[in-house]
Amino acid sequence: MAKKGNIIVGQSGGPTSVINSSLAGVYKTAKERGFHKVYGMLHGIQGFLDEQYVDLSTQIHSDMDIELLKRTPSAFLGSCRYKLPDIHENPEIYEKIFSILDKLNIEVFIYIGGNDSMDTIKKLSDYAIVKGHRQKFLGVPKTIDNDLALTDHTPGFGSAAKYIGASTKEIIRDAQGLTYDKAMVTVIEVMGRNAGWLTGATALAKTEECEGPDLIYLPEVAFDIEKFLKKVSDLLKKKVSVVVAVSEGIKLDDGRYVCELSGGANYVDAFGHKQLQGTASYLAGFLKHELGCKTRSVEFSTLQRSASHMASRVDINEAFMVGGAAVKAADEGDTGKMVVIDRVSDDPYMSAAGIYDVHKIANNEKTVPRNWLNKEGNFVTDDFINYIEPLIQGDYQPFMVNGLPQHLVLKK
Amino acid sequence: MAKKGNIIVGQSGGPTSVINSSLAGVYKTAKERGFHKVYGMLHGIQGFLDEQYVDLSTQIHSDMDIELLKRTPSAFLGSCRYKLPDIHENPEIYEKIFSILDKLNIEVFIYIGGNDSMDTIKKLSDYAIVKGHRQKFLGVPKTIDNDLALTDHTPGFGSAAKYIGASTKEIIRDAQGLTYDKAMVTVIEVMGRNAGWLTGATALAKTEECEGPDLIYLPEVAFDIEKFLKKVSDLLKKKVSVVVAVSEGIKLDDGRYVCELSGGANYVDAFGHKQLQGTASYLAGFLKHELGCKTRSVEFSTLQRSASHMASRVDINEAFMVGGAAVKAADEGDTGKMVVIDRVSDDPYMSAAGIYDVHKIANNEKTVPRNWLNKEGNFVTDDFINYIEPLIQGDYQPFMVNGLPQHLVLKK
Repeated sequence: MAKKGNIIVGQSGGPTSVINSSLAGVYKTAKERGFHKVYGMLHGIQGFLDEQYVDLSTQIHSDMDIELLKRTPSAFLGSCRYKLPDIHENPEIYEKIFSILDKLNIEVFIYIGGNDSMDTIKKLSDYAIVKGHRQKFLGVPKTIDNDLALTDHTPGFGSAAKYIGASTKEIIRDAQGLTYDKAMVTVIEVMGRNAGWLTGATALAKTEECEGPDLIYLPEVAFDIEKFLKKVSDLLKKKVSVVVAVSEGIKLDDGRYVCELSGGANYVDAFGHKQLQGTASYLAGFLKHELGCKTRSVEFSTLQRSASHMASRVDINEAFMVGGAAVKAADEGDTGKMVVIDRVSDDPYMSAAGIYDVHKIANNEKTVPRNWLNKEGNFVTDDFINYIEPLIQGDYQPFMVNGLPQHLVLKK
Repeated sequence: MAKKGNIIVGQSGGPTSVINSSLAGVYKTAKERGFHKVYGMLHGIQGFLDEQYVDLSTQIHSDMDIELLKRTPSAFLGSCRYKLPDIHENPEIYEKIFSILDKLNIEVFIYIGGNDSMDTIKKLSDYAIVKGHRQKFLGVPKTIDNDLALTDHTPGFGSAAKYIGASTKEIIRDAQGLTYDKAMVTVIEVMGRNAGWLTGATALAKTEECEGPDLIYLPEVAFDIEKFLKKVSDLLKKKVSVVVAVSEGIKLDDGRYVCELSGGANYVDAFGHKQLQGTASYLAGFLKHELGCKTRSVEFSTLQRSASHMASRVDINEAFMVGGAAVKAADEGDTGKMVVIDRVSDDPYMSAAGIYDVHKIANNEKTVPRNWLNKEGNFVTDDFINYIEPLIQGDYQPFMVNGLPQHLVLKK
């Protein structure tokens, strides 16, 4: 067998708790399959275009480092939000990318990211095929939002869901401890522009010893603020602590985001997504004004996507698995594909890596099915819970140094 | 020896991760010392006045339950923010309290709380002495704010500091992963009206593999917004990700809270404290406007005080110890006292329970010494770190059920 060349891996898009577990899976499998060098591009394709990359053997020195990497949140290599132009718009960029790949003797290019990153894999693999380049391009899914099509779920989702479930339980305890004769409504805001997967995860807090949130509103269903007010008002007749979870992306029937009602600033990223904030804060103020009760809002914000100290073992292991599966697939000749997670069995839960054509995947957003919400659209069903529960199981104990979780950090 | 009567314990003020560990310490020690029944007042003295209490033997059935209680955040018995009137203002309330105590054959009354709760202990023990009642009144300290005088530190502080340190590390990783060519400033808001202990805890994130926050502003030093702007602007010339931690209570030289600059709503509780919010959000908007860089704000909010999944072992153990020590002190004849934590040794860290007169304690707020901040007032010193570091050591593994931490919850 001919001696193998090199492999390069990059990370893109928003951070997750387990995106580095996929990186660890790529590295370990690449080494085991005999690739010569494993390069990491710094800050994804954007840094790569500036020839910013690192030989990962200068960073990972032991199995202990691999374990540490699996417990490190956010992109170890740095991320980017850089959208490649269409090939005909800017062929020079493609020529530059392939000249660097050739210079580094790269045979396999692996990109760990979300919907937008799979677009990069699609374009690069198309270009390689058209131009006769030898490199293989594989995508590894990653997003806390769980909005990628064709994969049962995405790495990163389970850990975010676990953190959200645990924190929601703690917030409910906090609220119940505080409320006696004066009612309080807590509004929790969870990430998710168009898909309510993470907001639905607050329902995990409903356990034998916790009643869970009272109401859950996802962006999949138009938000009726008058019905919401009525519902909260009715609940306050029965209990002193009401907890509501809302997605940052909930919208009114007329298409306006609820957070827009607050007159808050809007910010648009390179992909044209609105950056939302202030939905819970607006609704808390609204309820206080209308009902005269005490209210508070809690935003999980950045914490929900980078809380690796509360990562799910299933999630970390699956992230590692899909990283390795991408190397295997490329090594066996695949290109223009994304690795996906197939659910093999529900009980006991089992999953396996599968492979799909990125042309079928890119930019299709997977939302929560309407029948996984109740009729009123204010809570998730048992089907939703049965889907999500296996994904938050088990832990990876953080490596605690001096009382805090230790991370593996890029040495420059 | 005469057969012992009963004991009652209550919880008051804001929640912490370990206030229930003190409750567990009270319960276990009371049982071991032969008290007949251990009652818990529901929602502190306020619920007690409504004759809301529970026999704890109906709630705690095993050593396993005690361990679960130690891992349960917020007040298991429910809390209150109820300030007893002065004795001469409303003697009827005192008569009512003592008639219930007599009815229940209570010999010892233990109250777990902060500054305001020690005021309750002081008044009740004064009243008992003056009126010749036999009950003993003991206070057990509790507050994440660490602002109680005479005790080296307060139970609840170490766990909040640990959560803040761990989450700050994760936020710094998140920010560094995201920033490449476009600068971003992250402003973290931490609880603390007048004392900056918790905000200073963000400095724990400065470890061998993490540079920690760049700037830390405590309420102990007047906040100069122009100097702050200059400082951030200078930092942005050297690095793309700047992380700033601010206390919710930072004030300008003229005494106005920074959050007041935002025109945000103010809320005053029963003790006359302002409820603040929006400091980080205001400063993030300010920096964006002045410097044109991307900014974001993160509020740890409720999560920092109830994240028992990240509690410190030292803190849980000390909370348990002071609960038990209160029972012991009362059993040996003390009244009108608060248990405190004395630091016996720094290295190795050792602590022991001590006893102080509540008349010396109540309503004196302990702030961070000026010489534990640097000259510019924008970071804490090594003395601060040496003080806080022992308090965040060690973990209590949560009891995980179905992927989430289990809690002990009151059965009514």
